[in-house]
Amino acid sequence: MATDPISRLIRELAKLPGIGEKTASRLAFHILRAPGEYARDLAQSLIEVKEKIRLCGTCMNLTEQDPCALCSDVRRDATIVAVVATPPDLYAIERTGGFRGRYHVLHGVLSPLEGIGPDDLRIKELLGRVAKGELKELIVATSPNVEGEATALYLAKVLRPLGIKVTRIASGLAVGGELEYADGVTITRALEGRREM
Amino acid sequence: MATDPISRLIRELAKLPGIGEKTASRLAFHILRAPGEYARDLAQSLIEVKEKIRLCGTCMNLTEQDPCALCSDVRRDATIVAVVATPPDLYAIERTGGFRGRYHVLHGVLSPLEGIGPDDLRIKELLGRVAKGELKELIVATSPNVEGEATALYLAKVLRPLGIKVTRIASGLAVGGELEYADGVTITRALEGRREM
Repeated sequence: MATDPISRLIRELAKLPGIGEKTASRLAFHILRAPGEYARDLAQSLIEVKEKIRLCGTCMNLTEQDPCALCSDVRRDATIVAVVATPPDLYAIERTGGFRGRYHVLHGVLSPLEGIGPDDLRIKELLGRVAKGELKELIVATSPNVEGEATALYLAKVLRPLGIKVTRIASGLAVGGELEYADGVTITRALEGRREM
Repeated sequence: MATDPISRLIRELAKLPGIGEKTASRLAFHILRAPGEYARDLAQSLIEVKEKIRLCGTCMNLTEQDPCALCSDVRRDATIVAVVATPPDLYAIERTGGFRGRYHVLHGVLSPLEGIGPDDLRIKELLGRVAKGELKELIVATSPNVEGEATALYLAKVLRPLGIKVTRIASGLAVGGELEYADGVTITRALEGRREM
């Protein structure tokens, strides 16, 4: 069972995050039982996604055409840019429907432990956009965890000298959450970030 | 995001069992970030598995060549056949290393609720093998659940008139399991299946 097509498929599937040997095997046998077109459709969409998707030259998001649909949408405010770590983060904000500015995708966060420094992120491209002088505000929307905070602090440090307003998304209690069960750091943040009513 | 390559890939991945929209999206973005060869390798193995894998004309297991490696292995006892529901069931037995007979894969179990009757399983092919007169014993190794039991009873009914010995794998307590926590049906089965020591 070492090099036959089924084992090979199981091995490839098991490389996916969160998919172990057993799940990979279950998926492989499902694919074998599925109607002939499914394996072909999935294979086709895998090849297509790699061939057609590249980075938008402006915001660095994944896109089929450059500039991407978000960057070429004139109804969006081009002076406010939300800086996110990854494309899924961008889509999470976009799904809210409440943000009408533009984006910049860093493709990661600073992580000394994993050897990811500023040069590994799309920070140079962000500085380039700022240098054009068309932006008024950068909202740093990285996650409020250790690496997201470190990235936000780094960005603030390099961006503020350029005379641009740099803001950070709020941390606090999740809407619908219960104070009783919130962790201490979050409660502290929520108190620090209090606003007048 | 309706028909672009990323959404299409997410949709295809979400068709897999146990993979919801969120997991599919996580997998898709992982694939996009992975080195270029991964998507291609996975696509290749998907196509290959569908092109190269067919059913062994004897045991109905998935195989690249016909007859399969198990059926053409002369060191295996060709007179004892374990009847299993699916290829993963076959591999589960094979991994134990303790069974040296041959196999027959039904590709399912009887399930009136899902509209699966005897004609939907590889029972005709099994009867064909029995008719050749070379088999001495059929071990019905379907799972000891409702559908597996129904399938076993049906097989016993159609096979016994052909004068072949039909046996059933034992049900009872799992090795290493605890009597205290076993369910009542399993304990009853374990008592019924008691053997002299």
